[in-house]
Amino acid sequence: MQRRSLLAGAALAATVSAPALAQAQPTIRWRMPSSFPKSLDTVFGGATAIGDIVRKLTDGRFTITPFAAGELMPPLAVLDGVQNRSVECGHTAGFYYVGKEPALAFDTGIPFGMTPRQHQAWMIHGGGLQMMREIYDRFDAVQIPCGNTGAQMGGWLRKEIKRVEDFQGLRMRVPGLLGRVYAKLGATPLQLAAADVYPALEKGTLDAVEFVGPYDDEKLGLAKVARYYYGPGVMELGASLCFIANKKAWAELPDSYRAALEAACAQAGAEMLAKYDVGNVPALKRLVGSGARLGYWSKPIMEAMHKATQEVLKEEAAANPLFAKVHDKWREFLDEQLVWAAVNDGAAEQFMLGTRRSASVAR
Amino acid sequence: MQRRSLLAGAALAATVSAPALAQAQPTIRWRMPSSFPKSLDTVFGGATAIGDIVRKLTDGRFTITPFAAGELMPPLAVLDGVQNRSVECGHTAGFYYVGKEPALAFDTGIPFGMTPRQHQAWMIHGGGLQMMREIYDRFDAVQIPCGNTGAQMGGWLRKEIKRVEDFQGLRMRVPGLLGRVYAKLGATPLQLAAADVYPALEKGTLDAVEFVGPYDDEKLGLAKVARYYYGPGVMELGASLCFIANKKAWAELPDSYRAALEAACAQAGAEMLAKYDVGNVPALKRLVGSGARLGYWSKPIMEAMHKATQEVLKEEAAANPLFAKVHDKWREFLDEQLVWAAVNDGAAEQFMLGTRRSASVAR
Repeated sequence: MQRRSLLAGAALAATVSAPALAQAQPTIRWRMPSSFPKSLDTVFGGATAIGDIVRKLTDGRFTITPFAAGELMPPLAVLDGVQNRSVECGHTAGFYYVGKEPALAFDTGIPFGMTPRQHQAWMIHGGGLQMMREIYDRFDAVQIPCGNTGAQMGGWLRKEIKRVEDFQGLRMRVPGLLGRVYAKLGATPLQLAAADVYPALEKGTLDAVEFVGPYDDEKLGLAKVARYYYGPGVMELGASLCFIANKKAWAELPDSYRAALEAACAQAGAEMLAKYDVGNVPALKRLVGSGARLGYWSKPIMEAMHKATQEVLKEEAAANPLFAKVHDKWREFLDEQLVWAAVNDGAAEQFMLGTRRSASVAR
Repeated sequence: MQRRSLLAGAALAATVSAPALAQAQPTIRWRMPSSFPKSLDTVFGGATAIGDIVRKLTDGRFTITPFAAGELMPPLAVLDGVQNRSVECGHTAGFYYVGKEPALAFDTGIPFGMTPRQHQAWMIHGGGLQMMREIYDRFDAVQIPCGNTGAQMGGWLRKEIKRVEDFQGLRMRVPGLLGRVYAKLGATPLQLAAADVYPALEKGTLDAVEFVGPYDDEKLGLAKVARYYYGPGVMELGASLCFIANKKAWAELPDSYRAALEAACAQAGAEMLAKYDVGNVPALKRLVGSGARLGYWSKPIMEAMHKATQEVLKEEAAANPLFAKVHDKWREFLDEQLVWAAVNDGAAEQFMLGTRRSASVAR
């Protein structure tokens, strides 16, 4: 009976849209390494969410199994794995691959850059996605933006930073472009495995570390060894993550499975940012309650960071025509968005900051 | 041959997941009236996008046809149409139905409220969606947030507003809660059909009108009859729209079609906000180029608006326990978000406003 109604159903649907039905049939299993550990349940959760949503959308026919950083390949080798099709897809961040192509920094975010909303507008209707996809195409990959952390905190420091001069000689764990900006302020950017950060801060062989935000940072217990927690997140107003698929594997998918991935990334991405936004404040309060001292970069410090950032971007653009091209378009878009922010949204939000009733951990 | 491979495909899939395949079969056609006219291609485009995405996700088996405001029913009767199942679903805004239940204002946004990002966080992980769904359930409807306009401009005025006293006697087309706030400042809120706005401003029987933002407002040509265009959008930091489905029609859907609607609304919603963000600045520049004068509410004016808003909310809460309950939770969430904005994202964004190179239409 069950089988009979099944066949009847199939025949009925076939009269309506036979090719579509045929396309909907294949059972496909993909593996999706993440660049993030399970302990970062927000960003690793992005990969889990993509798999869950796609499974629901395809009635369980298209299953994508997430793997935490290191389970299948090193965390920063996800693009390589996708390129050589040792896996079909992955969840990662473009700026991990600036060694391959510096312009991939724009896929994630750069210092003094875009908010998650501005970045999303640039991607969807501002030409950003098209430029990024052209770059990923060289690595035989197709990219879909998926998730954002929101602005990240400036980081944890063992001492107070009152003046730009206080960065002199500071040994700081901070990656990529951010590291180059801090270097211009006199700091020494270092690469250090995550597990080595706590003991190095404790011993005093490391002075500072840039990580994510309260929700994630709380898990590291850094307040015990570097009590000053600096903001605001001008050096990283957002970090946009992405799903990437091997180009041939992507092309082999039925249309509806590709649509499922696009929609799943939109939904999983919205959920990730919401989870950070909801989780950061209670975590921040707990951190402050347990002894972290909230610090704010002074205006002269932010101005020095901004100036150093422009120098780094200019150097990079001079050395790399593609970086220069993307940067020009990106900058033009950001300038437009800042006009709108000054006229409307940003100005309204600024007024709102003055209306808050609770000021327990804020300025 | 075609038929044979089809059946073979169906049999193969059936061995993997027979119940899922059975669920995936039905061809379903729904009608989706929008509360918005086709001329507002961003918000009406939200309905079109939902239909397009769901069709792709279901290989054309689930088709949802959008209808512009008035084609099937009056624009503000969409919830009634969904409740009595004269249509299966609709795309609308909760605050159109505050006459039925005042707390539905929170589904869309209220003066001095949340940004699109804060609202999304409240909905997804802050308990907002659950509260809103409990309300819609009384109208036999299931709600999914879908799209946001971003902060709306304060509106078009025939004269400059320099002091709070300048609102005295101002005849202003402005709906609902916003109208009650302006009334406390001395204005007279009026209800007027959209088509009557331009001639009334021209004749001088109307002094001001609140609409959306540059991208939409440009189409109305209001600068010719009310040249002062005021911001920032403190009275409406966002307007969240929603998809609603009849509860029984929703329950009859296969799981994968319900998942398709959830994912489609996330994707269509992101696209809508991006389209506004990208379109507003060029439209604003054209408006200013054609004679509109950009005005800014002074701080004392925004403070008076804020105070009047708190009075209106207090009155509403006193008259309506459900409104009071939702307002308390909503307020608590917003306060937390404002702490985070002050510490990190909002403070960083504020610094960014000072870095912009182009200041053509901004303060």
